[in-house]
Amino acid sequence: MQRWVIGVDLGGTQIRALRTDLSGKKAARAEQLTLAQQGPQAVLSRILETVREVTAGISQEEILGLGIGAPGPIDSAGVVHDPPNLPGWKGVSLVDELAGPLGLPIYAGNDANLGALAEHRFGAGIGVDHLVYLTVGTGIGGGVISHGRMLTGWRGFAAELGHQTLDPDGPLCGCGQPGHLEAFASGPAIAREARKALEQGRSSTIPEHADGAVTAKSVAAAAMAGDALAIELLRQAGYYLGLGLANLIHTLEPQRILIGGGVSLAGELLLEPARQTVDQRLMSPVYRGVEILAAALGPDVGLMGAAALVMQEGGSPR
Amino acid sequence: MQRWVIGVDLGGTQIRALRTDLSGKKAARAEQLTLAQQGPQAVLSRILETVREVTAGISQEEILGLGIGAPGPIDSAGVVHDPPNLPGWKGVSLVDELAGPLGLPIYAGNDANLGALAEHRFGAGIGVDHLVYLTVGTGIGGGVISHGRMLTGWRGFAAELGHQTLDPDGPLCGCGQPGHLEAFASGPAIAREARKALEQGRSSTIPEHADGAVTAKSVAAAAMAGDALAIELLRQAGYYLGLGLANLIHTLEPQRILIGGGVSLAGELLLEPARQTVDQRLMSPVYRGVEILAAALGPDVGLMGAAALVMQEGGSPR
Repeated sequence: MQRWVIGVDLGGTQIRALRTDLSGKKAARAEQLTLAQQGPQAVLSRILETVREVTAGISQEEILGLGIGAPGPIDSAGVVHDPPNLPGWKGVSLVDELAGPLGLPIYAGNDANLGALAEHRFGAGIGVDHLVYLTVGTGIGGGVISHGRMLTGWRGFAAELGHQTLDPDGPLCGCGQPGHLEAFASGPAIAREARKALEQGRSSTIPEHADGAVTAKSVAAAAMAGDALAIELLRQAGYYLGLGLANLIHTLEPQRILIGGGVSLAGELLLEPARQTVDQRLMSPVYRGVEILAAALGPDVGLMGAAALVMQEGGSPR
Repeated sequence: MQRWVIGVDLGGTQIRALRTDLSGKKAARAEQLTLAQQGPQAVLSRILETVREVTAGISQEEILGLGIGAPGPIDSAGVVHDPPNLPGWKGVSLVDELAGPLGLPIYAGNDANLGALAEHRFGAGIGVDHLVYLTVGTGIGGGVISHGRMLTGWRGFAAELGHQTLDPDGPLCGCGQPGHLEAFASGPAIAREARKALEQGRSSTIPEHADGAVTAKSVAAAAMAGDALAIELLRQAGYYLGLGLANLIHTLEPQRILIGGGVSLAGELLLEPARQTVDQRLMSPVYRGVEILAAALGPDVGLMGAAALVMQEGGSPR
């Protein structure tokens, strides 16, 4: 009998679902808008619709289970605890809400944690049993594989790797705390520094690459075209990223660190300054050799991770 | 047949060994000076002597194995990589050097990592499968239990929890890097801030509690006697400790954090400000509820951890 796995990514903007075989090969994919402002019940209905789309014509016995990733905080039991971009989701259990209507085993996790699982099983972290994954975008999230397993922490809230204080007097983070890595190296942080420099009269082609407001994307585009200010802004973000990575190397000592998310599309303009900072900030030469690389899986990483979670927890052979 | 386990702690000052039964009950204990300046071969001879003392009259078949803790960096294979307080130990394998002469299975680890293992098996972390242990003394070391297992990282160098950058412009750490937690909250850091305040003419009874030079111990003694400056210095150290603990909660989400080491003898004068800072710096209320407590095992924690390592790795029933 053919066996399938369903992976769902519940994002603030889009719901996406896919069906894969046990090797991770995609057989069907569907997506629709989340329309999060309509609240949990409407969104849950749309999740069910999207899942039905990718399971059309498939008998239930062929489906090993459904994995779903959601923005944190989400606990190990699959309960969503009021994430900023899912209004009304206070204590909603994804596992309970989906298991009844679908009649499938449901597994849920934080989307960034699942990103680590996806890269470990299908991406740039295959065979690497001590792995750190960072997604650098609107926020900075993370996931950790330790001794070959996803590190969840006590209640499932571990690996918020963007929320480490790098400077107690630093700029405010999206979470409201001062000086976190996210407040220095996320997309909005890079855009903030760009606007500040432009307001101070720095000459730059960044505005020419901006489609309206200046964003991290326009900074990256300008940097790739050789703009000196844009390159400097990415170097500054990469410096703070490197400080955070050195901390993570001392704490977790991964073999490899993978950087994904929209800001990582800036590539070596971000990664090379991060690597240089790590080299300078290691507490001892024994920590050398940790690889810092771009993640492999792109925007579907969360979906693939949700599928990988079913394979891990559903006991499928590796 | 009675079964025994040997635990050894190789410190910069002392070599200590004990023999316990499988419940951790001590049956024999011995110690002597390390005299580290005489180099690895002389120290290894003294380790063997100390072990022979605690195994006198015991047949080899009764001994499940020997665990040994050493100052980091020490890798998963038991090779010591040039720690500052063990001159000449560049690439010396404790496992190889001890296995031959003793004819026993040898297990080695970082002394602070083993502290976490000891507290988990015998101390204030029994039954807590997500545990962080920090030893705050001359330096700040750490150990992590995640999903019930010691987190070692790729090559065994994980859990250097004192070496996280809290302020890139902060004071130099013992490791040479700026602004690490250790540079703000270790014993020498507290003593440095005390001397600075006294030189600036702050009135305090700290010098009356000092036996010669002002140390963290004299600060703690003065604080316990109600000295305002001393209390403020411990609160400041506790503030930075709290920043570091909030980072660790976001990264590892332990159920409990245990603080040991000499500086932790200041007790609530250090822990209460650390807890207050953690409360203020959590990125979300979902992280509330992590316990921050004093460690239980005292100065023999490393020895107990070395014995616990044999029990873990030697496959003894829990």
